[in-house]
Amino acid sequence: MVKVKFTSYNKEIDVLEGENLLEAIRKAGVFIDTPCNGSGSCGKCKVKITAGNVISEDSRHITEKEKKEGYVLACQCEVKEDISVEIPGTASSSMHGMKIEDFSSKREYEIFERAKNQILKCGMEFKTYVRKDYLELDLPNLNDNISDFERLKRHIKNHLNCNNVFCRLPILRKIPQLLREADFKVTITHIPRGVGKTTIIDIEKGDTTDKIYGVAVDIGTTSVAACLVDLYNGELIAKASSGNAQIKYGADVINRIMYSTKGNGLQELNHAVIQETINPLLNKMYMDSGIRKEQVVSFVTAGNTTMSHLFLGLYSNFLRMEPYIPAFVKTPFIKASELNIEVNPETFIYLIPCVASYVGGDITAGVLSSGMWNTEDNILFIDLGTNGEIVFGNKEYLMTCACSAGPAFEGGEISCGMRASGGAIEKVKIGSDYEPIISVIGNEKPLGICGSGIIDLICSMMFAGIIDRKGKIVKNLKTNRIRFDENGIGEYILVFKEQYDLDRDVSITDVDIDNFIRAKAAIYSGITTLLNNLGMDFTMIDKIYIAGGIGNSLNIGNAVKIGMLPDIDQDKINYIGNSSLMGCYLTLMSEDARHKLEEIANHMTYVELSVDPLYMDQFVSACFLPHTDIEKFPTVKKLLEKSL
Amino acid sequence: MVKVKFTSYNKEIDVLEGENLLEAIRKAGVFIDTPCNGSGSCGKCKVKITAGNVISEDSRHITEKEKKEGYVLACQCEVKEDISVEIPGTASSSMHGMKIEDFSSKREYEIFERAKNQILKCGMEFKTYVRKDYLELDLPNLNDNISDFERLKRHIKNHLNCNNVFCRLPILRKIPQLLREADFKVTITHIPRGVGKTTIIDIEKGDTTDKIYGVAVDIGTTSVAACLVDLYNGELIAKASSGNAQIKYGADVINRIMYSTKGNGLQELNHAVIQETINPLLNKMYMDSGIRKEQVVSFVTAGNTTMSHLFLGLYSNFLRMEPYIPAFVKTPFIKASELNIEVNPETFIYLIPCVASYVGGDITAGVLSSGMWNTEDNILFIDLGTNGEIVFGNKEYLMTCACSAGPAFEGGEISCGMRASGGAIEKVKIGSDYEPIISVIGNEKPLGICGSGIIDLICSMMFAGIIDRKGKIVKNLKTNRIRFDENGIGEYILVFKEQYDLDRDVSITDVDIDNFIRAKAAIYSGITTLLNNLGMDFTMIDKIYIAGGIGNSLNIGNAVKIGMLPDIDQDKINYIGNSSLMGCYLTLMSEDARHKLEEIANHMTYVELSVDPLYMDQFVSACFLPHTDIEKFPTVKKLLEKSL
Repeated sequence: MVKVKFTSYNKEIDVLEGENLLEAIRKAGVFIDTPCNGSGSCGKCKVKITAGNVISEDSRHITEKEKKEGYVLACQCEVKEDISVEIPGTASSSMHGMKIEDFSSKREYEIFERAKNQILKCGMEFKTYVRKDYLELDLPNLNDNISDFERLKRHIKNHLNCNNVFCRLPILRKIPQLLREADFKVTITHIPRGVGKTTIIDIEKGDTTDKIYGVAVDIGTTSVAACLVDLYNGELIAKASSGNAQIKYGADVINRIMYSTKGNGLQELNHAVIQETINPLLNKMYMDSGIRKEQVVSFVTAGNTTMSHLFLGLYSNFLRMEPYIPAFVKTPFIKASELNIEVNPETFIYLIPCVASYVGGDITAGVLSSGMWNTEDNILFIDLGTNGEIVFGNKEYLMTCACSAGPAFEGGEISCGMRASGGAIEKVKIGSDYEPIISVIGNEKPLGICGSGIIDLICSMMFAGIIDRKGKIVKNLKTNRIRFDENGIGEYILVFKEQYDLDRDVSITDVDIDNFIRAKAAIYSGITTLLNNLGMDFTMIDKIYIAGGIGNSLNIGNAVKIGMLPDIDQDKINYIGNSSLMGCYLTLMSEDARHKLEEIANHMTYVELSVDPLYMDQFVSACFLPHTDIEKFPTVKKLLEKSL
Repeated sequence: MVKVKFTSYNKEIDVLEGENLLEAIRKAGVFIDTPCNGSGSCGKCKVKITAGNVISEDSRHITEKEKKEGYVLACQCEVKEDISVEIPGTASSSMHGMKIEDFSSKREYEIFERAKNQILKCGMEFKTYVRKDYLELDLPNLNDNISDFERLKRHIKNHLNCNNVFCRLPILRKIPQLLREADFKVTITHIPRGVGKTTIIDIEKGDTTDKIYGVAVDIGTTSVAACLVDLYNGELIAKASSGNAQIKYGADVINRIMYSTKGNGLQELNHAVIQETINPLLNKMYMDSGIRKEQVVSFVTAGNTTMSHLFLGLYSNFLRMEPYIPAFVKTPFIKASELNIEVNPETFIYLIPCVASYVGGDITAGVLSSGMWNTEDNILFIDLGTNGEIVFGNKEYLMTCACSAGPAFEGGEISCGMRASGGAIEKVKIGSDYEPIISVIGNEKPLGICGSGIIDLICSMMFAGIIDRKGKIVKNLKTNRIRFDENGIGEYILVFKEQYDLDRDVSITDVDIDNFIRAKAAIYSGITTLLNNLGMDFTMIDKIYIAGGIGNSLNIGNAVKIGMLPDIDQDKINYIGNSSLMGCYLTLMSEDARHKLEEIANHMTYVELSVDPLYMDQFVSACFLPHTDIEKFPTVKKLLEKSL
């Protein structure tokens, strides 16, 4: 065995002498972009050996100079002795968000606990869909010589009260030898359905009833988050997130759909989300926890309708063409092995039902975990991910719509934007000297700005007088942080590259600000139009829940100040984190929650904004900071007057 | 295109210039033994080019002399012009029975019609398990924008009265584009289950309700027979049979089971029966009929319990070890794609339920098609395939047992034995001059002897005085057809090789006769023991049905004369052909028959002969021609006395 040290990650692993370096990197759970999957042709896995030597093949991707400095293609190397490896930012794709993040922040734990309690408060039982039972079968003899499967069924009938026991061929194939190796004492993993019916999805030797695990995955257009759950006690064992590898095929759902219609596009997108995103996250969690993939027997996932289609490898072009018809909203029965997902191959894949072409299972899951379906208060639920979806209602009714906000909240279409992961500037304040104070996720080098950071930045720029109310950067201010290009496009530099030895400055431009303003206007006008449809206004909102990938550090006050959220009492507004992932977790843990979820999806009423003439008017008025009609934002008006 | 002519088969096909000759042979539906699957390493596909030229690679399997004569390895040849090909007996494995036979004989049609009428007589409906329905869906619009799958389900609910509609991922993936290409007019293939439930297994454009096909396959240890059925009208479209390619791993079930426990043995046996036997038969029938495999949506198969296990790739070693426990008797739900069977991949594979370790689904199917479950008469059903199984009973009760008869009835363990296919001697008469008169299946060159031929032969030898009542060949008879080896083992030559330009004489030896006597004794003693268990005797038998691979030309009288069947009125004894295949056909065509089948399997009582002390006594007494106690065969006694 030899040691491989990852200096930039503070990690070290032992591998067999002769191991391929790319394999070693993958085993260490360090993300590295490998579009060619290790064939040596793409050159993306370029790394630097800073100590020790490797046996490596020459490559056209490595210049003579780089070779001298120790650069190699990881996929073309054999590790022969202890080495240290430095993985450059370009290989690990930090900017593209493909670095896998651990579960860490206290805030995330709080959000998780709150969602969990929400369900208990609603009187739902934590009883999982998948069960384990330990059985001690009678031993066969000449007088009791029924078949192994019949013997198993007889025992289940007598002890678990199930008359109809099903299993698939791979399980049947395990039975004869396993029963005898286990002296006919086995644990079955099964899924009871209806009265007296169950399907066996695994069989193991001895009593393993306390080893039962599930996985919840939120598939966002930009980010994918997963958690590994102990189904025996509901505990969160591991969590991991990364960018969605589909991002290389387009930042938003429309671009992805268009790519999916070309050549092998659909297969490539399906491969990107499953093989390049979900499976690496799963393997990371298995490595962290020591749990084997065969032990994972429940899988719940949610995504917007396009993500749901691409996850299943379904043709999705009709989603973007009037009359916007999804292929499905509720998924049929699917086994993990059909999608090559790295859990127990017999695991049922539960994809949370969608509502319509632009309101997906992530929203259904979010509504579940928010608890809004169980209150008398009027709740406004806003998911700020790529695009933005809104739900308004309570236990009596649920109305929903989608706003075409684009990917700006997760850093998309913003020149230095990135998703809310390590290295993202998540908070910004600008003083009267135009100098910023920033806060970076993970206390790492600032690499870009995430959604919450952009809100802070635009808000601060507005109050510092750096931008006007149209979002344009003001000329002739006394600071070296502002510059204009030959076309007069302004740019405000948040971080100079020299300060942190970066490849480029971290900045925001007039174009970025305009993109972001359009995104926030889409949300605001969506809310207005939806309430208007119900004959209601902002005064009737009892609470606002903000969910989604915009980041844990969302400053609600600032979001109101830029006119993204209505100017109501800010105590009524809460950030509830990744509510889709929480909904998946609850669905994993509670059969009651699963039923509730299906009810929610069935009962949500979808409003198509694109055909509502009011929406466009509202949108145009909202493309201003905070709004063309400042009277709609009395608090902000006062503050602006004060700051003058 | 160029022409390839198969002189020995009177066949001709057109192929593309440059086609591989082995591929051409396979396309023509000519069986050729290719253990190495065309890699050129085994040398088994040696053929002779008798006209035209090919481009061929040299091979160590072809001598210089052979090369000059035109011999090549088919797998190493490219066809460049019109050629004629002669396939030698060794390559086409006629002796091993791997030649695919067509559906031809009038007798087989009669048997088929009788089985079919049997069912109608019992008041069962010819209504298939799999259905097709043509649907004209409402077109989607902005006001009716439910998903494609929901639209399909809504239509089915309204028009077919099914509230629960299921489908698997591959079908869901077809839906969006197909619906639009078909202008929302489609035919679904589906399987209704229970009340208001159905599973869609295919969806096609337009109205294809009259194009629905199924396949029935009888998997024998020695022979496999299949038929392609038009499910719309019940017509038999094609039939094909061949040897079971597993034969290379052993002639009987015990040898196969033992092979299956070694290394990859189980996978090889599974591959042999599916890839090397069933799929070639299916492709042959598709070629003959012009039906595409995607159109075949129902598949019913039966085999003895070992064949059933190996068909599913199930560990079967416990079948042969006390207390003889099968892994299953009733199969769970299996899709064709799971077993790589070349029908529509979503087709459900229905394997007819077995009864016990040595009474399989072939017997359940046989009992169904015999109609014995519906009569008041006491019926004795005997399946003479490899081994021999017996069922006795009527509508009130069904008792069954297995006799370890071995493969002799299908030509196994007989030096010139072969299965009842083209080239097999099926009838024999011997005159007082010791000269035989033979009849060969298909009027081909005699290559070997099948079961019915061996019965005739032994019977004739006994009455001609060539063998004594122990089955030993008598010395010093005046004929050149008898010879003895250095150990005194006698041999009777039925066909001299010179007469038909064969590789060797077709003959029978003392050892062969002894093997066959043991086989017939196993059947006779099985019948005696089973009846004895019920406190009954031969006088209570109202009818005997003989089924199985012994051959259509079975001479019932001769079978009685050698003591295989009890000496009762021969009008009561009927040969009913391949009752297992007939049972599979009926199960394909009638849901009622399928239910009846499950009832039969559940209600049959299995008697384990190996633990019955009477059986061994009976067996020893029956190892004689016709029996040690000649009084049990009064008719034969009279005939023997007359012939002296």
